[in-house]
Amino acid sequence: MARILVLHGPNLNLLGRREPQLYGQTSLAAIDTMLRQAAAEAGHELLSFQSNHEGELVTWIQQQGAQADVLIINPGAYTHTSVALRDAVLAVGLPTIEVHLSNVYRREAFRHHSYLADVARGQIAGLGAYGYLLALQAACALLRGEIGT
Amino acid sequence: MARILVLHGPNLNLLGRREPQLYGQTSLAAIDTMLRQAAAEAGHELLSFQSNHEGELVTWIQQQGAQADVLIINPGAYTHTSVALRDAVLAVGLPTIEVHLSNVYRREAFRHHSYLADVARGQIAGLGAYGYLLALQAACALLRGEIGT
Amino acid sequence: MARILVLHGPNLNLLGRREPQLYGQTSLAAIDTMLRQAAAEAGHELLSFQSNHEGELVTWIQQQGAQADVLIINPGAYTHTSVALRDAVLAVGLPTIEVHLSNVYRREAFRHHSYLADVARGQIAGLGAYGYLLALQAACALLRGEIGT
Amino acid sequence: MARILVLHGPNLNLLGRREPQLYGQTSLAAIDTMLRQAAAEAGHELLSFQSNHEGELVTWIQQQGAQADVLIINPGAYTHTSVALRDAVLAVGLPTIEVHLSNVYRREAFRHHSYLADVARGQIAGLGAYGYLLALQAACALLRGEIGT
Amino acid sequence: MARILVLHGPNLNLLGRREPQLYGQTSLAAIDTMLRQAAAEAGHELLSFQSNHEGELVTWIQQQGAQADVLIINPGAYTHTSVALRDAVLAVGLPTIEVHLSNVYRREAFRHHSYLADVARGQIAGLGAYGYLLALQAACALLRGEIGT
Amino acid sequence: MARILVLHGPNLNLLGRREPQLYGQTSLAAIDTMLRQAAAEAGHELLSFQSNHEGELVTWIQQQGAQADVLIINPGAYTHTSVALRDAVLAVGLPTIEVHLSNVYRREAFRHHSYLADVARGQIAGLGAYGYLLALQAACALLRGEIGT
Amino acid sequence: MARILVLHGPNLNLLGRREPQLYGQTSLAAIDTMLRQAAAEAGHELLSFQSNHEGELVTWIQQQGAQADVLIINPGAYTHTSVALRDAVLAVGLPTIEVHLSNVYRREAFRHHSYLADVARGQIAGLGAYGYLLALQAACALLRGEIGT
Amino acid sequence: MARILVLHGPNLNLLGRREPQLYGQTSLAAIDTMLRQAAAEAGHELLSFQSNHEGELVTWIQQQGAQADVLIINPGAYTHTSVALRDAVLAVGLPTIEVHLSNVYRREAFRHHSYLADVARGQIAGLGAYGYLLALQAACALLRGEIGT
Amino acid sequence: MARILVLHGPNLNLLGRREPQLYGQTSLAAIDTMLRQAAAEAGHELLSFQSNHEGELVTWIQQQGAQADVLIINPGAYTHTSVALRDAVLAVGLPTIEVHLSNVYRREAFRHHSYLADVARGQIAGLGAYGYLLALQAACALLRGEIGT
Amino acid sequence: MARILVLHGPNLNLLGRREPQLYGQTSLAAIDTMLRQAAAEAGHELLSFQSNHEGELVTWIQQQGAQADVLIINPGAYTHTSVALRDAVLAVGLPTIEVHLSNVYRREAFRHHSYLADVARGQIAGLGAYGYLLALQAACALLRGEIGT
Amino acid sequence: MARILVLHGPNLNLLGRREPQLYGQTSLAAIDTMLRQAAAEAGHELLSFQSNHEGELVTWIQQQGAQADVLIINPGAYTHTSVALRDAVLAVGLPTIEVHLSNVYRREAFRHHSYLADVARGQIAGLGAYGYLLALQAACALLRGEIGT
Amino acid sequence: MARILVLHGPNLNLLGRREPQLYGQTSLAAIDTMLRQAAAEAGHELLSFQSNHEGELVTWIQQQGAQADVLIINPGAYTHTSVALRDAVLAVGLPTIEVHLSNVYRREAFRHHSYLADVARGQIAGLGAYGYLLALQAACALLRGEIGT
Repeated sequence: MARILVLHGPNLNLLGRREPQLYGQTSLAAIDTMLRQAAAEAGHELLSFQSNHEGELVTWIQQQGAQADVLIINPGAYTHTSVALRDAVLAVGLPTIEVHLSNVYRREAFRHHSYLADVARGQIAGLGAYGYLLALQAACALLRGEIGT
Repeated sequence: MARILVLHGPNLNLLGRREPQLYGQTSLAAIDTMLRQAAAEAGHELLSFQSNHEGELVTWIQQQGAQADVLIINPGAYTHTSVALRDAVLAVGLPTIEVHLSNVYRREAFRHHSYLADVARGQIAGLGAYGYLLALQAACALLRGEIGT
Repeated sequence: MARILVLHGPNLNLLGRREPQLYGQTSLAAIDTMLRQAAAEAGHELLSFQSNHEGELVTWIQQQGAQADVLIINPGAYTHTSVALRDAVLAVGLPTIEVHLSNVYRREAFRHHSYLADVARGQIAGLGAYGYLLALQAACALLRGEIGT
Repeated sequence: MARILVLHGPNLNLLGRREPQLYGQTSLAAIDTMLRQAAAEAGHELLSFQSNHEGELVTWIQQQGAQADVLIINPGAYTHTSVALRDAVLAVGLPTIEVHLSNVYRREAFRHHSYLADVARGQIAGLGAYGYLLALQAACALLRGEIGT
Repeated sequence: MARILVLHGPNLNLLGRREPQLYGQTSLAAIDTMLRQAAAEAGHELLSFQSNHEGELVTWIQQQGAQADVLIINPGAYTHTSVALRDAVLAVGLPTIEVHLSNVYRREAFRHHSYLADVARGQIAGLGAYGYLLALQAACALLRGEIGT
Repeated sequence: MARILVLHGPNLNLLGRREPQLYGQTSLAAIDTMLRQAAAEAGHELLSFQSNHEGELVTWIQQQGAQADVLIINPGAYTHTSVALRDAVLAVGLPTIEVHLSNVYRREAFRHHSYLADVARGQIAGLGAYGYLLALQAACALLRGEIGT
Repeated sequence: MARILVLHGPNLNLLGRREPQLYGQTSLAAIDTMLRQAAAEAGHELLSFQSNHEGELVTWIQQQGAQADVLIINPGAYTHTSVALRDAVLAVGLPTIEVHLSNVYRREAFRHHSYLADVARGQIAGLGAYGYLLALQAACALLRGEIGT
Repeated sequence: MARILVLHGPNLNLLGRREPQLYGQTSLAAIDTMLRQAAAEAGHELLSFQSNHEGELVTWIQQQGAQADVLIINPGAYTHTSVALRDAVLAVGLPTIEVHLSNVYRREAFRHHSYLADVARGQIAGLGAYGYLLALQAACALLRGEIGT
Repeated sequence: MARILVLHGPNLNLLGRREPQLYGQTSLAAIDTMLRQAAAEAGHELLSFQSNHEGELVTWIQQQGAQADVLIINPGAYTHTSVALRDAVLAVGLPTIEVHLSNVYRREAFRHHSYLADVARGQIAGLGAYGYLLALQAACALLRGEIGT
Repeated sequence: MARILVLHGPNLNLLGRREPQLYGQTSLAAIDTMLRQAAAEAGHELLSFQSNHEGELVTWIQQQGAQADVLIINPGAYTHTSVALRDAVLAVGLPTIEVHLSNVYRREAFRHHSYLADVARGQIAGLGAYGYLLALQAACALLRGEIGT
Repeated sequence: MARILVLHGPNLNLLGRREPQLYGQTSLAAIDTMLRQAAAEAGHELLSFQSNHEGELVTWIQQQGAQADVLIINPGAYTHTSVALRDAVLAVGLPTIEVHLSNVYRREAFRHHSYLADVARGQIAGLGAYGYLLALQAACALLRGEIGT
Repeated sequence: MARILVLHGPNLNLLGRREPQLYGQTSLAAIDTMLRQAAAEAGHELLSFQSNHEGELVTWIQQQGAQADVLIINPGAYTHTSVALRDAVLAVGLPTIEVHLSNVYRREAFRHHSYLADVARGQIAGLGAYGYLLALQAACALLRGEIGT
């Protein structure tokens, strides 16, 4: 049994209410429940956290990263502006999967760059809440060693 | 029953032999077999094609696109250089999922830009051959209407 | 009677003490009092908040935005670096007026770009504390429907 | 009693008729009347001028600038292309307030740069014809010495 | 006896009054008189013109250029923004000497580029009103054939 | 019977005399006569105008645009520098065809950008005076509804 | 009697079906027929070809270019990415007219650059299928020597 | 006796554990102890603080800056992204020495720019924990007036 | 005895006929004969291929690369646009020498960048057909181990 | 009597022999003689020096600068690459006039930037050897105080 | 006992006399004496050199580098322009500490880039002559192995 | 019998000792001997020179260039920074072959640009000391007229 971390960045607590045509209608709580169940079925523990504070996200990665095995992260707006999050991910050294609900490449140019992309293992973008589920599957496959270096 | 297209760009016919530390050890034939089986289990037909020719890839999309429902595409090197492929995808109007085996953001700067990214529904990158399987799942979810616009 | 939000970003709590040749000699408390009185005279309620924390600013917009009618925001340094604030403003969907005390175009080049400018209704810059008062008038005019789309 | 100049750039003579969804439905004559009355109430004289000619705008600033106290300017398209207007404003040395009817930051990239912004005292943008009224108030406050350097 | 044209761009009519620390204290009339006398001493006729209008400057070059031998031009602000002036100079095909009163390289970055520089024979900059006198000497030397191609 | 406007920018009054190897040997008057005849044969009225003044070109579009049906414009040097012309074209809302005598892409880099290109219906470039005739045909086809949106 | 070549790039075989709001409703076959008839009326032979393959387009230019007199080319997506096509056009040395159905300047930024523009004689863009007809007229005028160098 | 502030940015609490090949093996507590002792030997009081929160770092500078004499700051990741920290340093007006453990110029390009560099007195980079000791010496020399303006 | 591959890109089949002032007067067949003889003299087998098709070039590298020892490649126009060729060279892992007939640095700016340059061992440019002969010598020296890593 | 320095950069010792169509046919010795005579006539001493060594130019400025009054400098190629020369000019603090024989704006783009331009008083370019004479006149005028700050 | 090299670039021989508000009032000889004494106290030999010649600096590094242990270098203006110095430092492979007297980040943009920064171990900037003393300490600590890789 | 010049730039005197994995193990003396012998066999005289001084390299080209027939140059670091070398090569007008030992395109971005590339006849790069031998052969072929213009 492994421990899977799921981290949600700023404004993701509004999911389901905020610009649903862009981000979908599922709430963050529903997503977390769905992910926890899917992880449990795969025999893993899943811990999730959301914050609007860059510093809290950094601290959570530092604290939880030591006793976890893989990280799924949707850094929201901090994707494009936070070197601190990147450094935290580098510091704990967990294999990381980056998720974006919307297709960031259809949006403002500043959303095309991610400070996490080259330190993560992979990215899943544009597939809504379903993208989290795919990320979880990828995390499980990583844990099973089915995805090479 | 829907029809799912899977398109592989240049040099992907070398999979398993070419730079395995970067692209993995599974051959393209094995990937196609795996995808076809998974699609069949979901009740769908899956048609795949590989070519080193930009023009053949464009023509195949034109010809197969009319009677298909979704497109999974790994354009390989043409990701970064082909407007013709982008135009073919726009022309057939299929929902499209872009797959990359390696994490393109860890590599040369010219691999960070994709001519398909903003016309595709979503991207899956850096997860090796497993990424194709996730893309297939996403395709099935799209067909079931489980991923919003 | 409408509710008007006024949000002040980092270091604005130092107003009156910090670089007065640049930012003026009025304290933030005095500005808030002045704005609250002016709003009351126009028959509106005004709620203001200052924080040095990007996350607290985001959270306050989320919490207060739902039951408010218009937002006046001086994001201070976060103007130039915070996509999270932009996303919060987009999420609550309030008509927003951006205020800057100093003329940002006379200063360092990185102050010429604002992540809020194109999601706000308008900007008022370079007019010191008086700019807040103008923003309040603009907010009232917006509420009266005197400013078109 | 002070003298306030109001200068309108090219195509602003079409106000009310030209792209009303962008520029509003008030005519320039109505705006000038409104401003003249408001100035009179504040005890000031207000002189306004519109031209489609860059050279006429420059000449008018030169001629009127010597016996005036403050300048309100909406340079229209010349905002983005005229160094000559900038030089005229520098030459007469009047405190200047720049006004834009529309939110230039929501429009084409070339409208994000202003040759006047860093030589003006402040900017008011995106608030339609009401922005002129705010600029007039700011001008009066400047004359009263209520806005610091 | 040759005919020498001297053309002054926008705001140069303010010379002596406008920012004297930057542009000096000699009036444009004084400069023109000085140049006319110096030309007469060299046996040449000198015709000068100033306008704030780009179009008038273009037209004057067209009209006077046909019966003149050399052009001295200080395009002022139009140096940096006018392709029309460049085209007029190209059209009449006169050898041209570009003059700037101030050292444009010490000023805003947009003043470092000139649309005339590569179609002129040479430039004299930063030497105040004296620069016009040097340009006149250069023009005379050009007419005497003392400056090669 | 429709009314077709033809507008010529700065220095085009020199056609036939100015750099004939670049711009051809036909005078502007000859071109206008040719166009007027061709328009008459197609049953349309044609009105043409040339100016070296940006402001006059703007004013003419404003004045003639209201009672005309289509605009053929060769903005000359203002192609590359005039936002005011672009705004005038946007303001009158006429379908517009942009003409250039020379192939601007073989010339200086600053001639590769046009402020009109994306607000015009189409462009014809590099085909000399004959390009005006093609533009007239295109204008007639537009009026006949033979060119879609 | 001269020989006129007409070359259509990738995805143009879909004309009439592909994004008709952008590219119109006429099929490529209809366009070719129209052009062949118009050429015949002018006493010329017209040969046309379409391919999705960059290499086939290059080869066709090489093979047909030797015994032809003028080339009309709509390179489609290869406009923006193919140096090989540019080199083929340079190699055969035919006078060339570049055609685009849509107004490329209203679309993605990468469509604003053409590798052919500065080696072609001229361009016609944004006028739909009618643009081909204008290009044919221009080709005939070129053959008659009515368009100067 | 003077008061010296030492401020550590995000992820520096992990020192000794995080990527030791890059950041060394000394813990932050050990560094603080070392610095406090060295300061005491020089007769000064030293106060240190670490936070992962941009806002807390800003607030600490505001609160401690008023009664301190010099600031040593290693802003970590916020070096490259925080205008708010820069503004706080400007606001308190303390002479400031910027420290980086690693040689930022050997790393990702985004680490080559610092928002603090031009408002600090000097920089010490690439010398590991020893760099803090050098910064302390520099701070003492500044207090003794041994380093000019 | 080793096997040496020689690959010629698009339009090189025209050598001797195409722009001889730029590319020389030797035909490609003559070059291939010359190279085959020189290779035979050195005791090596030499296989050459030309294509205008990017895909055929990629496929030929894939097919011939497995049983060859060194690759001499003149990618012609694809030098500047083909990531697929680069990837094919990377995939087969042959030591590669890049040849250009003309001095690409004297030509258009887009010819200054090569997608092959940093994956090849070395470059020979600007020396006409003779450059192929030098490349062959370099290939032989590589095979003899006379050129270090 | 003042002392005027004249400094010539690399390759200027070849004047008269090197590319005469670009740099003229007068030798450097002739120029120096001409300048020395003209200076003597004005009652000044003139000292000149040429070197191909950046370091020698720097040292000469340091050594001669202390007892001189004005510097005329044609830095040749070092104009575009030498910060050391700029620093030497700044260090001695002499009023400086920059001379270029050719019109640098008609040549390669890297010749458009000068490291001296903004620390010199003025520039004279494109007027051949005659430009040195004009520079000498300007130097004399500077010494007479006839050119303001 | 180790040998420490100290290298001073162009214009540093003027220290104490040149722009003292920027570079301080201590002469280079005084700095060298101070450094030699401090090195002697630490039991090391210190050799210093200054030159205005890039080539002499390169040669000195080559000659002295072989029998030395660490290099302290203030390349002055060559920091920003000399690849040759960088290559010399790379060639001798000595651990290197880069020193700048002034805070280069407060000065012209071209001073923000250093060709040495990423090949040096660390940088000390903006601390005047005292920065050399800190660099010496760092050198000694390096020699003692107290600074990790 | 012709005279061939061989010029080596800074740090090349260290060949064989400096970073041998990058530059090989042959000393410069050995290379010069090898080249002199090969030239002698071809019946030519060969003169070589190395310097770390930009000025000495320029002077040597000036002095030797007049009585030589071809120049082989490896400018080392000055490739990327010296306009003076470029000007010297232009001044003497010798056909020039540029040599680089390492593949500069695999190294730092600033090594991808050469100030000599477009004034040289050709380039040979990445082939170690053997590249000099190929350059000599090219020089001989040039002298025999076997390489066209």
